[in-house]
Amino acid sequence: MSNYTGYRGKSLSFLQKHNLQVGDIVRVVTEVDYSGMIMPRYEYSDDLHIVLKLKSGYNVGLEVSKIKKIEIESSSEITKETVHQPRINPNLPKLLLVSTGGTIASKVDYRTGAVAPALTAAELNATVPELTEIANIDTEVLFSEYSENLLPEHWKKIAEKIDSCLKSEYKGIIVAHGTDTMQYTASALSFALVNIPIPVALVGSQRSSDRPSSDAALNLISAAKFLVTCDTTGIYVVMHNTTSDEEVACHWGTRVRKNHTSKRNAFQTVGGSPAFIIKNDKIIKNQQFNYVRKREYVPKINFDTRVALIKYYPGLDPSVINYIIEAGYKAIIFEGTGLGHVGKIMYDNVDKAKKKGLFIGMTSQCIDGMVRMTVYESGRDLLNFGIMPLSNMIPETALVKAMWALGNSDNIQEMETLMKENIALEFSD
Amino acid sequence: MSNYTGYRGKSLSFLQKHNLQVGDIVRVVTEVDYSGMIMPRYEYSDDLHIVLKLKSGYNVGLEVSKIKKIEIESSSEITKETVHQPRINPNLPKLLLVSTGGTIASKVDYRTGAVAPALTAAELNATVPELTEIANIDTEVLFSEYSENLLPEHWKKIAEKIDSCLKSEYKGIIVAHGTDTMQYTASALSFALVNIPIPVALVGSQRSSDRPSSDAALNLISAAKFLVTCDTTGIYVVMHNTTSDEEVACHWGTRVRKNHTSKRNAFQTVGGSPAFIIKNDKIIKNQQFNYVRKREYVPKINFDTRVALIKYYPGLDPSVINYIIEAGYKAIIFEGTGLGHVGKIMYDNVDKAKKKGLFIGMTSQCIDGMVRMTVYESGRDLLNFGIMPLSNMIPETALVKAMWALGNSDNIQEMETLMKENIALEFSD
Repeated sequence: MSNYTGYRGKSLSFLQKHNLQVGDIVRVVTEVDYSGMIMPRYEYSDDLHIVLKLKSGYNVGLEVSKIKKIEIESSSEITKETVHQPRINPNLPKLLLVSTGGTIASKVDYRTGAVAPALTAAELNATVPELTEIANIDTEVLFSEYSENLLPEHWKKIAEKIDSCLKSEYKGIIVAHGTDTMQYTASALSFALVNIPIPVALVGSQRSSDRPSSDAALNLISAAKFLVTCDTTGIYVVMHNTTSDEEVACHWGTRVRKNHTSKRNAFQTVGGSPAFIIKNDKIIKNQQFNYVRKREYVPKINFDTRVALIKYYPGLDPSVINYIIEAGYKAIIFEGTGLGHVGKIMYDNVDKAKKKGLFIGMTSQCIDGMVRMTVYESGRDLLNFGIMPLSNMIPETALVKAMWALGNSDNIQEMETLMKENIALEFSD
Repeated sequence: MSNYTGYRGKSLSFLQKHNLQVGDIVRVVTEVDYSGMIMPRYEYSDDLHIVLKLKSGYNVGLEVSKIKKIEIESSSEITKETVHQPRINPNLPKLLLVSTGGTIASKVDYRTGAVAPALTAAELNATVPELTEIANIDTEVLFSEYSENLLPEHWKKIAEKIDSCLKSEYKGIIVAHGTDTMQYTASALSFALVNIPIPVALVGSQRSSDRPSSDAALNLISAAKFLVTCDTTGIYVVMHNTTSDEEVACHWGTRVRKNHTSKRNAFQTVGGSPAFIIKNDKIIKNQQFNYVRKREYVPKINFDTRVALIKYYPGLDPSVINYIIEAGYKAIIFEGTGLGHVGKIMYDNVDKAKKKGLFIGMTSQCIDGMVRMTVYESGRDLLNFGIMPLSNMIPETALVKAMWALGNSDNIQEMETLMKENIALEFSD
């Protein structure tokens, strides 16, 4: 069956006319010559271009009307035949890999010539053969989305999937995930599945696996090693710790942030060191915190999105608070300035929101460091209105926690109690 | 004349009854004993408390009805007498220090016992005597606000004040400023006063000068040295570069960010090294960029606040864009995810905003790294809607630049041209 995912109109006719499909490797003559794989297209695309992934890893869009010549170098069918089913080693532990999409899933996939950003056990085996030495990995495609398209309803589905697998024999679960919103999902799972009895590792890649600089394989291998070796539980993000391939970090799900758009070590633990460092096959535990708690596992898998994240800046119109009240929001997380402030121009509307019963929490746009609202009178004024200081919680984590606390409470008082409790290391003390 | 700034009702009566005023150092007996200086109060304060600044640097509010005994230790009048006018050394260059408020201005001030957060040349001399060896410093109090209360109209006043002093003999200008929004003001001045013929240093402090760990004096001294020694021009932020007193950094005004709520080295140059490092009396220039351009100085001192900064996150309600359109905004700066994305749930409303003629620029909430919207199809879709990628511009800088570009353009096309131009090192080419 031919595959034309995302192509329509002129570009579809062009491919059909030349007997080509997604996954084929072609040589194209236009003003410049290109060689690369025909990529699937995306729902909002025009019908004038085909997209090639070049060997450099970059994609290029080529206008079909300007293509002088196109020749097939190898077809997607041929590539597919090289994928073998992995052998099962009964002496190795079992892991589950749940794929949600993103570079790590889609590019491993594109390399094999398949189309949808899926990740079967066989494809994984073909791409990262080292994994078969560590564990027997079952794979399941939950969805295939770039992570900027994931919503709280996806967090819920991922959490439910993980929860449903806890009675099976998996020693741990890998969640393959785009890096754009990985920290939001990691926070969401940390709260929803607090006290989960096994470890879960979210893994992504900053560079696709068809580029020489890809971090995909090492991150996957490290996550698998971490899950089978470390006697720990909880939600972690497993990504490069250095720009080289020397170290991989396991970050606590609530304390991690993507702090660079493209570096392989973009993910960092804010306000501390990662939970574990994997270096030269050794896994080093951070002694600073002991995340593992011996409480009962009671999943709470609901999120209520009526929470607004507002970054305060000079010139912010206070009437945005009126909009938030009228639109029916139940909570506001401020990214305040410095130790946790908003300008006094906001005071009347903040007071109004509190009197309407909204929860208002304060974090800092500095990102690192503690919110301390007792140092200056401006902070004390805000405390007097009833704003809750959220210690050193990362703003994005605070937003996710508020959605979770609101989704699992009957009223704002219950929500406030959850917000104050240090549930999954989201704040120090 | 007695001073009771901010006191009213019960707390005012209490002070008058005991013949005390702001600036007096007192010993108070309540459930615990305290010794400290009576502090001015702030407009939203209640009338039930007096506030003391303790020797530790922290403030404490004491309910007057619970005070068993209060005794004066030294009066504000006595302290004031110890302040001498600085001698003028005709061999030294002249600097102007413009005070806008914040910790650096208020605490130097509180230490002398004065009340309003003002900074006269005499007080500066008394507090930081090293300055008289570097330059003759005129001082002027422009306003006395915590910087979270500063608005674009204050940026305009600071810019106009600096511009009005360029014909006098000042070798440079120090702007004393709260640290909360210092980076916003630094960006605003960088755009409004581009190609200014002298150097301007914004200086703040993270710890008040009555605390042993204060960074106020070293930052001020370093700024003065920098202004008189370095043959440079432009807008800089001068703050500690290390947690110790070893290094002070001069950051380019558009590339600096407050990345920690409380550390003395909270300010960092994003995506590069500071413009200058001051270490052991030596000033080391960063060779990476040459900021100084030989273009004509034409100040453009207008800001239009009809710009919204929107951080994209999973669960963001796309209808916030409708609110922004209806409220009459002219521009949106997105803090997108990763390389510069927003979820496809936003696409229809983004398209609508563009069709209504709004400017939309894309930055990344990762803060560091380049926005690259051609790597993934989702980025290319957003480019197709007409979103402008803003390279590695810091989101807060992009917001300020958009307010400035809008304020100095007749239409969105002119604004777009300004947004694309690298005016004050706000992006790397």
